[in-house]
Amino acid sequence: MNRICKLFGIKYPLIQGGMIWVSGWELASAVSNAGGLGLLGAGSMYPDELREAIQKTKAATTQPFGVNLPLIYPDLEKHIEVIINEGVKIVFTSAGNPKTWTSKLQAAGIKVAHVIANSKFVAKCEAAGVDAIVAEGFEAGGHNGREETTTMALIPAARRNNVLPLIAAGGIFSGRTMLASMVLGADAVQIGTRFVASQESAAHPNFKQAVLDATEGSTKLTLKQLIPVRLIKNDFLQQVDEAEMRGASKEELNELLGRGRAKLGMHEGDTENGELEIGQASMMIDNIPSSKNIISDIILEYKVAREQMQHVRFEF
Amino acid sequence: MNRICKLFGIKYPLIQGGMIWVSGWELASAVSNAGGLGLLGAGSMYPDELREAIQKTKAATTQPFGVNLPLIYPDLEKHIEVIINEGVKIVFTSAGNPKTWTSKLQAAGIKVAHVIANSKFVAKCEAAGVDAIVAEGFEAGGHNGREETTTMALIPAARRNNVLPLIAAGGIFSGRTMLASMVLGADAVQIGTRFVASQESAAHPNFKQAVLDATEGSTKLTLKQLIPVRLIKNDFLQQVDEAEMRGASKEELNELLGRGRAKLGMHEGDTENGELEIGQASMMIDNIPSSKNIISDIILEYKVAREQMQHVRFEF
Repeated sequence: MNRICKLFGIKYPLIQGGMIWVSGWELASAVSNAGGLGLLGAGSMYPDELREAIQKTKAATTQPFGVNLPLIYPDLEKHIEVIINEGVKIVFTSAGNPKTWTSKLQAAGIKVAHVIANSKFVAKCEAAGVDAIVAEGFEAGGHNGREETTTMALIPAARRNNVLPLIAAGGIFSGRTMLASMVLGADAVQIGTRFVASQESAAHPNFKQAVLDATEGSTKLTLKQLIPVRLIKNDFLQQVDEAEMRGASKEELNELLGRGRAKLGMHEGDTENGELEIGQASMMIDNIPSSKNIISDIILEYKVAREQMQHVRFEF
Repeated sequence: MNRICKLFGIKYPLIQGGMIWVSGWELASAVSNAGGLGLLGAGSMYPDELREAIQKTKAATTQPFGVNLPLIYPDLEKHIEVIINEGVKIVFTSAGNPKTWTSKLQAAGIKVAHVIANSKFVAKCEAAGVDAIVAEGFEAGGHNGREETTTMALIPAARRNNVLPLIAAGGIFSGRTMLASMVLGADAVQIGTRFVASQESAAHPNFKQAVLDATEGSTKLTLKQLIPVRLIKNDFLQQVDEAEMRGASKEELNELLGRGRAKLGMHEGDTENGELEIGQASMMIDNIPSSKNIISDIILEYKVAREQMQHVRFEF
C-alpha cells in the first residue's frame, strides 16, 4: 500500500495545502470527503477560530483531516493545546524547526509532517522524528526557500539517502504533474494553488478571479530581503519591486509591507494593494470546480498517464 | 517510434546541450557515438573555429550531431554559411526569433529546433515552422527566461495545444528526471549540467571541480536587469549582487560584467572572477564519468524507473 495513504488513512496520496485565508473547514472537509487529505490553514486563525474550524470540519467529514501550523506565531502553545484537545490526528508543521514540537505532538497520538524547501533540512526532520517530509519547490505559492530550488531538483535531492515518506509540493496541479513528482521519488503530493480556485475555497472571489486571470509570468518570488514569498504581480508587488530596485533597506521594506497585507488581498479581495499568495501553476488554471471534481479529474489523469507510459513515446 | 529519435535519427531521446566553452567536438562526438544527440556550442566559436569543430566531429562520429546557435551574434550569417557548407543536418537555435532563420536552414535540408523559456513563445515557434521545440525551465544553467517558469510548470504549458515534438530542459540529469519530464509531456530531454562534468567536456578542470563542489543553493539566477543567467555563486556574482542590492543601473552592471567573463570562468578556470554557467542539477553531481557512462547510467535508471511504476507506491 502507498505509504502516505497508509500513514494518514486516506484513499489517494493527495494532500490539499493548508493555506492561510483559503483553507477553512469547507475546503478541508470537501477534500477529505473526496478521498484526499484536507488541511486547515491555522496560520490565519486565532486559537478560538482554529477550534471552531476543527469542530466544523469534524461535523462535516468522518474522514481523516489535518491542520497546517506555521511554527512562528506567538500563540503557538495555545494553537497546539487546541489541536490536542480537539483530537486532531494529523499536523503539518512549517516555517520553523521541527525539533521543538514534533515529539510533543506525537505523544498526543498525532502524525507529524514537516515542510521544507531545502533538502539540507531533511536531516533535521529525521533527527526530530517526523512521520513524513513535505519538500516544496520554488514554483510553489506563498513562503518559499532562499535557495530557490525547484521541484524537479528538490525531490531527487530530498529522496537521496532519505527513507521517510516524502510529499512533493510546488507546481503540482494535475494528474501528470502528480505522476511526474512520484517518478522523481515522492510518495504523495501536496496541492495548493489548484484548490484556491475551488468552490469550497475561502479565498475572496476577487482572489479566485485573479488566479483565473494569471498567465505565465504573472507570479513572482519577492520580498527576498525579508521572507521570500511568491505572489501575483499587482500594485503592491510593483511597489516592493521598485523599493528593492533602488536598494531599500529591510526597515523600509517592512514598513511598506505593513500589517495585514495577506488578509487584505486574499480574504478581503483587494487584489491591487493586498498580498495574493499563489504558485506558478496558476497559469494553467481557468475554472472554479468543486474540490471533489478537482480530485477526481486529477486521479483520472494520473491513471491515464500511468497507462500511457506503455506508449511508444517512452520506448527506445 | 519516439518522435525525436525519428526526427534526428538517434537511438535515445537524449540531447546534450550545446554549451559555450563546454560543448566542443570531443563532447558532441562522444554523446552521438553513445546513442544520444551531441551538439556543438557555436556561441563561443568564431566561424573558423566552428568549421574546425564540425570537421573534427564528422571525423570522430558517423552518427547524427548538431550545432547550437544563439541568434544574437554579429557574425551570424557567417556561422550559418559554415553550418550549411559543412553539411550539418541539425541546428538548435536559441536567444532570438526563430522566424528569421528557420526556413533558410530548412531549405538547406537542416532540421531546426528552437529553445524557449516561456510557453507564450510556442506560437512563434509554430509560426516559424520549426521541427521541434526545446522548453527550458528556471533551474537550467546559463541564460534563462524572465518569467522564471520552472520545468514542472513549463512543460505542461508548452505541451498544451501544441503538437510539435517537445524537448524538456532544466533540472534533468538522471533517468528519473528524464522519465518525469516525459510524463509531463516531453518527447525527449536536453541535458547540460551533467555533461559539463564529463571526461569529454571542454570545461576547464577548475570549472568541473566547482560543479562537483556545488551543493543546494550554490547557483543563482542573476543579472536580471541585463539578461538573466544562472551562475555558480563566487566573488563575481557577489559583486553583481551587491551592485543590484544598492540599486545599480544597467550601465553600471554592464561595466561590472565587462567582456569575456564567461571565457575567463569556464575556459580559463578563474572560478572567482569568471562566469560559471551551471544549472541547479549541479548539487546532485559528484563525479566526472565518460559521456558514454553518463548516458548508459541515465538510460538504465530510466528503464528501471519505468518498470518501478508497477510498484505499489503508484497504486491506489
